[in-house]
Amino acid sequence: MSRYFIEVAYDGTAYSGFQIQANANTVQAELEKALHVFYRSPIMLTGSSRTDAGVHARQNFFHFDIAEKINDLKNDVYHINSILPDDVVIREIIHVKNEAHCRFDAFGREYRYYIYSKKNPFLNGRAYLYPYPVRLDLMTESADVLKEYTDFTSFSKRNTQVKDFNCDIKRAEWIQQGESIIFTVVANRFLRGMVKALVGTQLRVGRGKMSIHAFKNIIERKNCELADFSAPSKGLFLEKVFYDWENIKAQP
Amino acid sequence: MSRYFIEVAYDGTAYSGFQIQANANTVQAELEKALHVFYRSPIMLTGSSRTDAGVHARQNFFHFDIAEKINDLKNDVYHINSILPDDVVIREIIHVKNEAHCRFDAFGREYRYYIYSKKNPFLNGRAYLYPYPVRLDLMTESADVLKEYTDFTSFSKRNTQVKDFNCDIKRAEWIQQGESIIFTVVANRFLRGMVKALVGTQLRVGRGKMSIHAFKNIIERKNCELADFSAPSKGLFLEKVFYDWENIKAQP
Repeated sequence: MSRYFIEVAYDGTAYSGFQIQANANTVQAELEKALHVFYRSPIMLTGSSRTDAGVHARQNFFHFDIAEKINDLKNDVYHINSILPDDVVIREIIHVKNEAHCRFDAFGREYRYYIYSKKNPFLNGRAYLYPYPVRLDLMTESADVLKEYTDFTSFSKRNTQVKDFNCDIKRAEWIQQGESIIFTVVANRFLRGMVKALVGTQLRVGRGKMSIHAFKNIIERKNCELADFSAPSKGLFLEKVFYDWENIKAQP
Repeated sequence: MSRYFIEVAYDGTAYSGFQIQANANTVQAELEKALHVFYRSPIMLTGSSRTDAGVHARQNFFHFDIAEKINDLKNDVYHINSILPDDVVIREIIHVKNEAHCRFDAFGREYRYYIYSKKNPFLNGRAYLYPYPVRLDLMTESADVLKEYTDFTSFSKRNTQVKDFNCDIKRAEWIQQGESIIFTVVANRFLRGMVKALVGTQLRVGRGKMSIHAFKNIIERKNCELADFSAPSKGLFLEKVFYDWENIKAQP
């Protein structure tokens, strides 16, 4: 048996999310289907970072096991990509140690959220049109606040399976880029719906409708019903998943 | 009566083209529908530059006449945009002289064609995936050749209505931009299907499958059946329409 990581990118518009669900078209299902066709045997994928319906990824990972070692990884990438639909692409297949795990070994993720203020047919579906003036200085303050806290219960979807709501936020910032503003956030882990709730609530800060004090108060009350507005999926990109590759890759 | 130009941009993916056709969803039909709703009376549009099904525009123009002068152009742009679908946007409405004509007064157009070589879910639909190595130096030669000719019958669709196949090409060049290559062409006018046929044929030059001599020969034989390969619409953008604005705008 050999284990492989696959690095993928996808436009999430057409998908109900990342993980297999009954009666839903998912990125994972598309990948498993294509791998099955190419390797002529069923391949089970394990995902690194769940993305909700409609969320995009510039980088995400899965792993799978296969009986025989793959000889020509580049060749397989090329051919599996021609089986996959246009909105899902494999960037690389990486031979890893048998005990490597794409979810447990990931020590961080980076998300970005893209917002634009003026209708633009070419950003449609891959960014969120928010046609109101916002103050980036206030949102920079709210982003700085995030680094002072670790419990983000208030920005999580109710989820009975999760007991630990702590996230170690390494980086959180807003930047202006042409007519767009972009929120970048890096943490060891994220809770369900967290980035979209962080963006939606900070937009209220940016519009002057919520004070930094009120924003802190929401975090401190640890109540998942307080973050009142969740920004839509289409603006959200999983940008990067961080691994200690030297420790993960199989010896050549 | 007052006459107005409207500057628009659109993602052509969902549209059967620019001009009204029976039983087809067109950009013009969407615009006329939105203008009708907003101005509460039917508005007839005249288009500047026809774009085929699936072709995009970063800038294109229409004109229309309306009985009463528009008071607040920016206000109207904003409200009509909120009626229009996400993939069509009005950039500006411009008050012009009554005799200004968006097609006859346009003295040039710029088109760009975007090609990428490696599958990318975020370029999908707005560029053409051509996964073969091409030599940009050869395609630069073929682009230079274009400026030596004026009759482009060979790169036109058969069209019995058109008698004049002369185009004055002002600029034609290929550039590399990251993983993409882009063809830019500026001329006083273009024939139907011309840019897509120019791109498709030059790709054959770039792959070394057609010599510059053979390329010249195709132009010189003036036969619209010779350009063997037309690149698909999704990579093509109408970038700019040139006007002498000082001569066109109404006196304030």
